[in-house]
Amino acid sequence: MKLLRVGTAGSERPALLDADGTTVRDLSGLVPDIDGALLADDAALGRIRSAAEAGELPALDATGLRIGPPLARIGKVVCIGLNYHDHATETGAEPPAEPVIFFKAADTVVGPHDTVLVPRGSEKTDWEVELAVVIGRTARYLGSHEEALAHVAGYAVAHDVSERAFQIERGGTWDKGKNCETFNPLGPWLVTADEVADPQSLALKLWVNGELKQNGNTSDQIFPVAEVVRYVSQFMTLYPGDVINTGTPAGVALGQPEPKPFLRAGDVVELEIEGLGRQRQEFKDA
Amino acid sequence: MKLLRVGTAGSERPALLDADGTTVRDLSGLVPDIDGALLADDAALGRIRSAAEAGELPALDATGLRIGPPLARIGKVVCIGLNYHDHATETGAEPPAEPVIFFKAADTVVGPHDTVLVPRGSEKTDWEVELAVVIGRTARYLGSHEEALAHVAGYAVAHDVSERAFQIERGGTWDKGKNCETFNPLGPWLVTADEVADPQSLALKLWVNGELKQNGNTSDQIFPVAEVVRYVSQFMTLYPGDVINTGTPAGVALGQPEPKPFLRAGDVVELEIEGLGRQRQEFKDA
Repeated sequence: MKLLRVGTAGSERPALLDADGTTVRDLSGLVPDIDGALLADDAALGRIRSAAEAGELPALDATGLRIGPPLARIGKVVCIGLNYHDHATETGAEPPAEPVIFFKAADTVVGPHDTVLVPRGSEKTDWEVELAVVIGRTARYLGSHEEALAHVAGYAVAHDVSERAFQIERGGTWDKGKNCETFNPLGPWLVTADEVADPQSLALKLWVNGELKQNGNTSDQIFPVAEVVRYVSQFMTLYPGDVINTGTPAGVALGQPEPKPFLRAGDVVELEIEGLGRQRQEFKDA
Repeated sequence: MKLLRVGTAGSERPALLDADGTTVRDLSGLVPDIDGALLADDAALGRIRSAAEAGELPALDATGLRIGPPLARIGKVVCIGLNYHDHATETGAEPPAEPVIFFKAADTVVGPHDTVLVPRGSEKTDWEVELAVVIGRTARYLGSHEEALAHVAGYAVAHDVSERAFQIERGGTWDKGKNCETFNPLGPWLVTADEVADPQSLALKLWVNGELKQNGNTSDQIFPVAEVVRYVSQFMTLYPGDVINTGTPAGVALGQPEPKPFLRAGDVVELEIEGLGRQRQEFKDA
């Protein structure tokens, strides 16, 4: 299923994209919202599935409706750094021996087409298309890759917007350049795991002002989704409604020759992952 | 005011510690909970204050009642590293030129006397008493120290439990050793800012199995609370109900001669900050 949330920020209603790929169905009569509680509730998900198959869900006139992030009340956003061979190479880093973990605050999450703000004082705002994994079951010291995948509710497109000077040149951890407001567009859809046959063969693309900048595939991930989830669960407990951004392929501004084409107000970034939908953001000054 | 939350985990009710320092008053007839929404609501805080002064709040029989964290629905926990001169020295680090930022997930927060779990595979679990700052107003690009302090709702004792091998020896950022479950006891109280005359002259102490290990004062902070809040607001937006752990003074296990006395199941840690109350945790294996 492709779950989404439509409406003004903070007042989104839960919805489902029909199998036809265009009709948006209203879920608000069936479930209060799309959040960790829903994802952990097999019975509720089953009711949505049955109602959809029976054609019982009312269509929503989605014309002009904003699409919000496909998940409400996100607990935490765990991020994996340097997780693609080609991206590690372009940044001059050795491929990490084990996953690199950093955080984005859940309050940085916005809708897939919302405006992204270039922070005040920023000269190095950069893009990163990423496969986001949404957790559906409490995950703690998982023992195998199979067990790890059983804790995944679904997948989404994430944009891990990053300010490189804040991240690398201002001391301390990367978190300083990863948590500016609006820095994590998510969606348009939360695609349930049953619809993603192989999370390790998804094409990821990102364009800036129409020019293709990133063109990768999750097959190039150093640590695949199952290993990332298993690994993270050794260091922290993952809860339903947590998100893991699993890293970005090559092609970010940081990896390009000088003068590096960092983002400025007026730039438009579009990104998509095979089967998970497409985002488009205009950048403005904070 | 000293605000607290009492009851079993997940079902705490809001309460107030009387000016007499012992009677616990029930606030559940007045406000639904103690969270960011309450802290941003001057009228609601005013109603609590008036009811307390008028002696209208019912006493709660707190005998045997667990004390939870004094704040519900915490947004994010921003942490400042190496923020005391004496602690930077003991770890062999240069005092940072600007604040070091890392994160704890809000789901690591537990009550002040709850059990803390030593993670599986841990050999270097360490303690850190910290002054926590609770945000009461949305803070974004703050311009001055005065403005920063006006965004602080109150203060609390925080225990920034840390696994040093995970933090330092496993690659990536410090976050890997800061986010194990139960790693952030908070409370017992949220003391409103009006009761803390000077956040830069508070004694902090921590004992392990009865032995004094940390004995510091916030006067030794490299970046005082007002600067920390102002600084952080340049990199991310702070919302009501966010928490900043402002760093720890000298005396952690990491800073001691070999064999360093890292924590094990069975150890008992007690910590307190002048005017903000005292915590006590037993450590057990995860």
